[in-house]
Amino acid sequence: MKKHILVVPGDGIGQEVTTVGKQVLEKIAAKFGHEFTYDEALIGHVAIEATGDPLPEETLVKMRASDAILFGAVGHIKYDNDPHAKVRPEQGLLKMRKELGLYANLRPIKLFDELLEASSIKPEILKGADILFFRELTGDVYFGKRERIEDGNTAYDTMIYSKYEVERIARKAFEAAMTRGKKLMSVDKANVLESSRLWRETVQAIAPEYPEVEVTHQFVDSAAMMLIKDPKQFDVVVTGNLFGDILTDEASQIAGSMGMLASASVGDSTGVYEPIHGSAHDIAGKGLANPMASVLSAALLLDISFGLKEEANAVIAAVDAVLKAGFRTGDIATKDTPKDMILGTDAIGAEILS
Amino acid sequence: MKKHILVVPGDGIGQEVTTVGKQVLEKIAAKFGHEFTYDEALIGHVAIEATGDPLPEETLVKMRASDAILFGAVGHIKYDNDPHAKVRPEQGLLKMRKELGLYANLRPIKLFDELLEASSIKPEILKGADILFFRELTGDVYFGKRERIEDGNTAYDTMIYSKYEVERIARKAFEAAMTRGKKLMSVDKANVLESSRLWRETVQAIAPEYPEVEVTHQFVDSAAMMLIKDPKQFDVVVTGNLFGDILTDEASQIAGSMGMLASASVGDSTGVYEPIHGSAHDIAGKGLANPMASVLSAALLLDISFGLKEEANAVIAAVDAVLKAGFRTGDIATKDTPKDMILGTDAIGAEILS
Ligand SMILES: CC(C)[C@H](C(=O)O)[C@@H](O)C(=O)O
Ligand SMILES: CC(C)[C@H](C(=O)O)[C@@H](O)C(=O)O
Repeated sequence: MKKHILVVPGDGIGQEVTTVGKQVLEKIAAKFGHEFTYDEALIGHVAIEATGDPLPEETLVKMRASDAILFGAVGHIKYDNDPHAKVRPEQGLLKMRKELGLYANLRPIKLFDELLEASSIKPEILKGADILFFRELTGDVYFGKRERIEDGNTAYDTMIYSKYEVERIARKAFEAAMTRGKKLMSVDKANVLESSRLWRETVQAIAPEYPEVEVTHQFVDSAAMMLIKDPKQFDVVVTGNLFGDILTDEASQIAGSMGMLASASVGDSTGVYEPIHGSAHDIAGKGLANPMASVLSAALLLDISFGLKEEANAVIAAVDAVLKAGFRTGDIATKDTPKDMILGTDAIGAEILS
Repeated sequence: MKKHILVVPGDGIGQEVTTVGKQVLEKIAAKFGHEFTYDEALIGHVAIEATGDPLPEETLVKMRASDAILFGAVGHIKYDNDPHAKVRPEQGLLKMRKELGLYANLRPIKLFDELLEASSIKPEILKGADILFFRELTGDVYFGKRERIEDGNTAYDTMIYSKYEVERIARKAFEAAMTRGKKLMSVDKANVLESSRLWRETVQAIAPEYPEVEVTHQFVDSAAMMLIKDPKQFDVVVTGNLFGDILTDEASQIAGSMGMLASASVGDSTGVYEPIHGSAHDIAGKGLANPMASVLSAALLLDISFGLKEEANAVIAAVDAVLKAGFRTGDIATKDTPKDMILGTDAIGAEILS
């Protein structure tokens, strides 16, 4: 198979982890006889530094021309504490999602058995948990009108959804539920929000098309509680952009660490594959970052964008083997992990490759 | 001390738990020689059934005339799955908060040592965790303009904050931090939302008034993750209405169960004291509900509205003694709890009283 992959490392540890992710793709191509070509492009803080624009036109052109995108992370502490910054790394990320029509963000939460002890949650609560989140990614308060009014003393954002936006993500979630445990939970705040009521009635209207899927509706506060109390009761979850942002980060603790979680953003065109962790500037450049989320993102890329299931499974098996052999990065080490088994980004990357 | 207390049980288990909460107040009055008088009023679904209005004028008049309000819960499953319902129980709750100017919702999260095993989180992660949330309660997307447009196919809500709203809740949080661990975390989504950027810059502007308090700012997704990963790092948290709703429900798992958590809503006039759990219709009327959140709400009422610290501590000590004696309700029982130590609402209420 011939494919063109764009690597977009972005900021902070994005660079280090996508390097390993790309090496894994190269190895898979060699092993399975595919021809993958690569290009690279800028986004986020590094793009602002280089061009003044968090998503330069050149990057967007390269994105549209590629078959899949391996993405790192965006963000820089410098902007976080400056509420007045006009240009921000995150604008690049949001614009990319919108421009490429990436309305469905898939976040599988599955714990590798070897990491059962790495979580702050009890192993018996976690064992067997396997959740697939569908987070809507191009609507909600992320893209509604926002403004300062009254001499800058009042600010608003608009949480907005249209029926077709809810329908298309809900359908994807129902389809996925059909191939899994046939349970779908839709999360909203319909007891307060009008946009949530639209969300709920739209999901309710689609449900009869999938009579085999058992649908439940939960308020976001209650879902946030249930995720920790009893993660095993979840199968597929579908929710809006903001609630999905919060719940999937929370749910990362079910998988032991954010460093293990990959995501796929798909929709109208080229898919984007990225860790759910951020740019983590505190450990950037130190070679400490866990590259497994990027490696598992590469697996999702092979599976979803290229339909290469066997290759994807080979990648997951490699990560599993490295964990079984006892190797860990700092974020997933426990007090029982021997010091010499705690590796840096490149070293654990090398283990995964071999 | 002479005080007039309004009991507002509301819906579902609200009735059962406030009955115990009120008994505790009566007992305290008798023991410490106070003269508490009581009245009762309707809100929520029961008020809709009786009057058509989720917050009847009569209730509001009684609320304004009282020195403190012991509140139950509102909500009914009947409205939850009907996105078209025009009148909803929650409207009563929201209107009460707005009318009484209850802009500060305090939610202390503290684990009773005896319940260390009841949580899904590991005991060693929890031990010593002690968090005080300040959730803003009369602004945000809860009270901004909301509407259906485009023939009902699009819906929006407005997430809106003004500087003075952020200032007053932030000041309360800073003051509380001064009496505790002197650490304040402000939670927002300033990398995306304009209302969050206003929130952050307002908190930043107040910070110099409290030089002893160490202030940090976290994005809500990251805070949701940290709460589970390492709850001990939190002291005081201040956040908006929606993020506070989600994070405090999530944080209930740190305390073992929602059934243990009380909250105080204070502001311009009469304070309202209520469990953070909802109406829980699945167990309502069965005598199974854990009344401790209502009892601990009564303790907060004594402490905050009446300044009766000793009395409040007596209530907390009674709850502690019952837990130490091994009594549990279903929600906080573990697999090691002997069956005959698992009590219903009234029975555990009687233990607390004695
Ligand atoms: C960086 C930020 C804008 C982004 C989001 O909120 O979507 C991130 O948290 C994510 O989840 O991808
Ligand atoms: C019932 C609901 C409207 C309410 C809220 O969201 O504020 C509840 O969840 C709470 O936290 O008191």
